[in-house]
Amino acid sequence: MAADIAEQPEVYARMLARTDIAPLAARIADLRPRHVVFTARGTSDHAALYGTYLTEIRLGIPAGLASPSAITVYGARPDLRDTLMVAVSQSGGSPDLVEVVRVAREQGALTLAITNAPGSPLSEAAELHLDLDAGPERAVAATKTYTAELLALLLLVSAIRQEEVPGDLPELAGALLRDDTAVELADRYRFAGQLVTTGRGYAYPTARETALKLMETSYLAALAFSGADLLHGPVAMADADVPVLAVVGAGPGGRSMDEVLAKLGERRADLVVVGPSAPPGALHLPTPSVDEHLAPLLDILPLQRLALALALARGLDPDAPRGLRKVTATL
Amino acid sequence: MAADIAEQPEVYARMLARTDIAPLAARIADLRPRHVVFTARGTSDHAALYGTYLTEIRLGIPAGLASPSAITVYGARPDLRDTLMVAVSQSGGSPDLVEVVRVAREQGALTLAITNAPGSPLSEAAELHLDLDAGPERAVAATKTYTAELLALLLLVSAIRQEEVPGDLPELAGALLRDDTAVELADRYRFAGQLVTTGRGYAYPTARETALKLMETSYLAALAFSGADLLHGPVAMADADVPVLAVVGAGPGGRSMDEVLAKLGERRADLVVVGPSAPPGALHLPTPSVDEHLAPLLDILPLQRLALALALARGLDPDAPRGLRKVTATL
Repeated sequence: MAADIAEQPEVYARMLARTDIAPLAARIADLRPRHVVFTARGTSDHAALYGTYLTEIRLGIPAGLASPSAITVYGARPDLRDTLMVAVSQSGGSPDLVEVVRVAREQGALTLAITNAPGSPLSEAAELHLDLDAGPERAVAATKTYTAELLALLLLVSAIRQEEVPGDLPELAGALLRDDTAVELADRYRFAGQLVTTGRGYAYPTARETALKLMETSYLAALAFSGADLLHGPVAMADADVPVLAVVGAGPGGRSMDEVLAKLGERRADLVVVGPSAPPGALHLPTPSVDEHLAPLLDILPLQRLALALALARGLDPDAPRGLRKVTATL
Repeated sequence: MAADIAEQPEVYARMLARTDIAPLAARIADLRPRHVVFTARGTSDHAALYGTYLTEIRLGIPAGLASPSAITVYGARPDLRDTLMVAVSQSGGSPDLVEVVRVAREQGALTLAITNAPGSPLSEAAELHLDLDAGPERAVAATKTYTAELLALLLLVSAIRQEEVPGDLPELAGALLRDDTAVELADRYRFAGQLVTTGRGYAYPTARETALKLMETSYLAALAFSGADLLHGPVAMADADVPVLAVVGAGPGGRSMDEVLAKLGERRADLVVVGPSAPPGALHLPTPSVDEHLAPLLDILPLQRLALALALARGLDPDAPRGLRKVTATL
């Protein structure tokens, strides 16, 4: 897991140099989809969630996440003409996603598979395929394939907008991975039984992925909420005994967290803010100040290291979480 | 909260007798939406999730949940022609949902508000309004407005399909509420710090709503996962110390939980199955055997009583959860 995490700046540099993503974006743009549906599981579902924000905000196309079971379990056959269906999966081996893509093609959708496995059933099932080329991921807990999925989605959307992705992402990622604040933070959660993660907008996928990494590697009951949903109920649970990790960007999403942070302060929650700055009274896990749509590519890096360090501090083996395999076959 | 819960059979009977929902459904059917987007927060978001399954499976129209922040925080202006936007909110007072509906109308969507508050900002903002008429909800934790939202969505979809909703729902709900198995179960969770809920397809909204009720009333760290996502990571967390509540119907969604239940058995999880039957080795919270698309209207009832009983067993006041108000104003 440590090696996979460390490779991310290199994966970014390699992906930024690719010339095969712009032609793929051009094919998608030519077809002018009216609607984009993402389908994914686990970690890749968080990359897909990032994809829905990029699509709605930066392309002005309505986007959503599909529930595979509607198609695979209940036999739904929605009309998917004018729809782009994007399946995201590092292994490309989930039978339910393969079935969703197969049905989506029959129902008229343009289909795109984003995988780290060319020749996988999913990449074969879809009309278009984007290979992440992130190299083999050795740990069960996905790290470098997650961020490669994020960057693939960003490169596609940026190419459709005919915009460049900033070239300094690999350097920013490298510098961030050399900062050990996250590893030191692991001590704080050594004996925590539960934890809440939160963020809004582009930061919400980071909050969800952090919670999943902590569950997978450290068996912590980590609950992720969008900042707005947290105020609709779950905030009742947050108090001085439940640590909160809030991902707060340097833009409108971050500013919309002000009331959430204030409410958590009132409840005397143990608060760590991940982002360029932190309010008084909160601990701070610093990440670079970039446009919020780029922040998911950076903010998750120290949080992956936190999950790894916490697993080690607890005497667990982050490379072999109990009960998990690399390819999860749900039907 | 107890009084709100007890009124649900009566609310069902009243809604089933209404004659104003079919004309609303006819107006929606006439416009032939190509796509349905739901927007909601908290408990109503779980009703909206049920709405996405009904729409995809029973109407064959692609459906999804909107992230309000894309519009309200980042200013996204997606093209929503041929789209039906459904906002679900008991209070009709959330400023972010009002803004989403306002923008959706500008962007060409047909808009429908489902609220328990005629004359509320949300019902005024939308072109169409369905009043739940569930009577005032006294507890902060929503119960009867949740099930009224579910039934409103079912009545709309059934009217579009020109199908009847079974008339025995009020009787089934009444009989289920007279069974005290759920209340006895509260003792089992008296000292639990965390709990996992799970279900697939139509049962997933029930799993999510159960987790939220337990968080709101008993401050339990309750994590909800679709059965498929549970196998992609979080199952690592489940063991004999983490109780699991699985909602398992008598149809394809229930059968697709077999492998999840088997995996939880291997991990020696403390398992309670909510549904018509339970496998050997699991405790059983019995609910009626009905078609899975009707089960969400029944399965949640004993689980609401469980949340209430657990709060009381812990010496908490379920009618006044700390840090919550009835209308949550997020922007």
